[in-house]
Amino acid sequence: MFRPNNDYLKLRGSYLFSTVAKKQREFQEANPDKEIIRLSIGDVTQPLAPVIIDALHKAVDEMAVAETFKGYAPDLGYEFLRKAAAENDYKARGCDISPDEIFVSDGAKGDCGNIQEIFDKDCKVAVCDPVYPVYVDTNVMAGRTGVFDEVTETWSNVIYMPCTAENNFMPDFPKEVPDIIYLCFPNNPTGGVITKERLQGWVDYANKNGAVIIYDAAYEAYISEQDIPHSIYECEGARTCAIEIHSFSKNAGFTGVRLGYTVIPKDLKSGDVALHSLWARRHGTKYNGAPYIIQRAGEAVYSAEGKKQLSEQVAYYMKNAAYILNGLKSAGYEAYGGVNAPYIWLHTPDNMTSWDFFDMMLEKAGVVGTPGSGFGPSGEHYFRLTAFGSYENTVAAVERIKAM
Amino acid sequence: MFRPNNDYLKLRGSYLFSTVAKKQREFQEANPDKEIIRLSIGDVTQPLAPVIIDALHKAVDEMAVAETFKGYAPDLGYEFLRKAAAENDYKARGCDISPDEIFVSDGAKGDCGNIQEIFDKDCKVAVCDPVYPVYVDTNVMAGRTGVFDEVTETWSNVIYMPCTAENNFMPDFPKEVPDIIYLCFPNNPTGGVITKERLQGWVDYANKNGAVIIYDAAYEAYISEQDIPHSIYECEGARTCAIEIHSFSKNAGFTGVRLGYTVIPKDLKSGDVALHSLWARRHGTKYNGAPYIIQRAGEAVYSAEGKKQLSEQVAYYMKNAAYILNGLKSAGYEAYGGVNAPYIWLHTPDNMTSWDFFDMMLEKAGVVGTPGSGFGPSGEHYFRLTAFGSYENTVAAVERIKAM
Repeated sequence: MFRPNNDYLKLRGSYLFSTVAKKQREFQEANPDKEIIRLSIGDVTQPLAPVIIDALHKAVDEMAVAETFKGYAPDLGYEFLRKAAAENDYKARGCDISPDEIFVSDGAKGDCGNIQEIFDKDCKVAVCDPVYPVYVDTNVMAGRTGVFDEVTETWSNVIYMPCTAENNFMPDFPKEVPDIIYLCFPNNPTGGVITKERLQGWVDYANKNGAVIIYDAAYEAYISEQDIPHSIYECEGARTCAIEIHSFSKNAGFTGVRLGYTVIPKDLKSGDVALHSLWARRHGTKYNGAPYIIQRAGEAVYSAEGKKQLSEQVAYYMKNAAYILNGLKSAGYEAYGGVNAPYIWLHTPDNMTSWDFFDMMLEKAGVVGTPGSGFGPSGEHYFRLTAFGSYENTVAAVERIKAM
Repeated sequence: MFRPNNDYLKLRGSYLFSTVAKKQREFQEANPDKEIIRLSIGDVTQPLAPVIIDALHKAVDEMAVAETFKGYAPDLGYEFLRKAAAENDYKARGCDISPDEIFVSDGAKGDCGNIQEIFDKDCKVAVCDPVYPVYVDTNVMAGRTGVFDEVTETWSNVIYMPCTAENNFMPDFPKEVPDIIYLCFPNNPTGGVITKERLQGWVDYANKNGAVIIYDAAYEAYISEQDIPHSIYECEGARTCAIEIHSFSKNAGFTGVRLGYTVIPKDLKSGDVALHSLWARRHGTKYNGAPYIIQRAGEAVYSAEGKKQLSEQVAYYMKNAAYILNGLKSAGYEAYGGVNAPYIWLHTPDNMTSWDFFDMMLEKAGVVGTPGSGFGPSGEHYFRLTAFGSYENTVAAVERIKAM
């Protein structure tokens, strides 16, 4: 008799954002006349930039003619896109990453979830707390996390690195040395950032202890301040300890277009096993490449006109971020993030739980955010709002919160 | 110190088609003036049909305007596509499959590779031999296949079901009862088909023995004869034992567009665990949906005009298949398939090994095919040619083979 993967059955409830969506839907059904504003899931709202639209149309036309039609893509992605990423995201920042160390995919979420598969099942994982749920959940599904403690809401075999206002949302080195360290800066959900000096400390720590850092750089386009690294490869020694995951969802609005890439330097090895080879094998066996027309859209992101149009789009969202941050502060909230990241992370008033605050916001203000506790135990009493709404909705939401 | 997934290290050499491509590239470099014709990998060559191109352009335009812009897709895929698939691929054939049992993905290869993840690591897998390498390799990577025997070229914990000319390329029920049975009809690589009566036998066998059938229906659009089932759900009882994987690559030329879907009926359970829930959880945690514009292209496949244009495309390739099959037979080869499938499976002459025949075909005829032994030990002394080339190239290849 076939049996299910019991590790899947260990997962807690449903995916955080599915629960948020369900609560929102139920409220809307009960209150059909109320207009809800969603500042919850990190989904963008601005249309694709003209340069992206042009690239998509052009590539679609190529698919209509036998001479320019494209079938299966190369395993790692098209050279034109890997070269553009290597040139603009790395070489231009002084990072030594070659095109053939870049693996194009259909988005950062899949890569964040699948990357753990190339490691031994007994590797010990460390995550920031709060954290993007995908890092932990995919390790649960792989049987790597041990037993869940209902009281502390933690897994016995996961190292949690608390990130709260007390440590400025910056993890300390854990007491127990992990094998795999997930880091995401600018951070989801806290909006916190890391200085180059501090990130260099993590790279040195990983190299010294034989750990690998999985660095999620999904929000690097939102960095506005100096001395904040856009890539972990800006740090010396990162080629022997770091994997970097890159998204096009937030810098180019590709949440519904689906494109991302993962960098694995060829120097990153365990003994004589190069992780680059394992990930290449995974791509070759379980994946068939991102669509040609969408890889062409990705190439357009790096064009001169693309950079101009997309920096305007990022600026649009960051205007929202500033509006939310200032609005919350003027209303007396403790609020963080929002300067180098599209997320605002607020402390709930009167020690309310995150879900109680969620319910109150939904009922009193008609605004949907994401409960901090959904990102981990240290997220309790926090709450995430995103800057990805329209400006008009963002202003309306802040006014409603102020009046709450 | 982090350690790699040792199960990955058990994989044999590189992916079959990568090796074929490498040999072809080396030959071309050594013989730059020779024009090679590729009838190897199952990649299509005809451009996308006009109805698909129109749907893509229209959807791209929607992404350019805030009012119609689409961000993250629903977890299971857009309702419009799931409804179209349920209606046309199932209801129209008398199969009881509802839209919410259909999970839209970026292609059948990923689904074929990932589906094993929802099963216990100790489940025993049965495959046809020869077989599409992805089924076996992904189980190797999951640690499910035991030890490789270099002499027999088989895994100790995999049940092989030989499919040769002797049994008309139709597997017999294995002596040892498996937990998971992979079946693909019309078959890749042999081009063989299964009658409804025989498939009903497999469904009954699975239900009786508590096994699950993973049914790869990637080539159903090529079925030309009566009494050949297009879906396993045409068989009674399949809802409690079968998962079906569907591709748009071969019926609509989407190899570079990327779209597929997997059906898991809600009645398919192990105890009280519904596999539908596990797969939904995988989608929610490790995947972010197929691109909106590409799901719209998928919808167009089911339009009246889409069906007309795509049946012409299939007919084009099947004309190639008939040309290859008849050409090989007239040249004295034992050749199979090619009637309900885009693959022709030939017996190598003079008991040549598959790779020796590959080298001879490449050197003497400049034609690239795929060695049967790459699909499994029972594929030795066989060779696969595909009908996916242009008609002109197909004719030229057959003439060169005849003259060889």
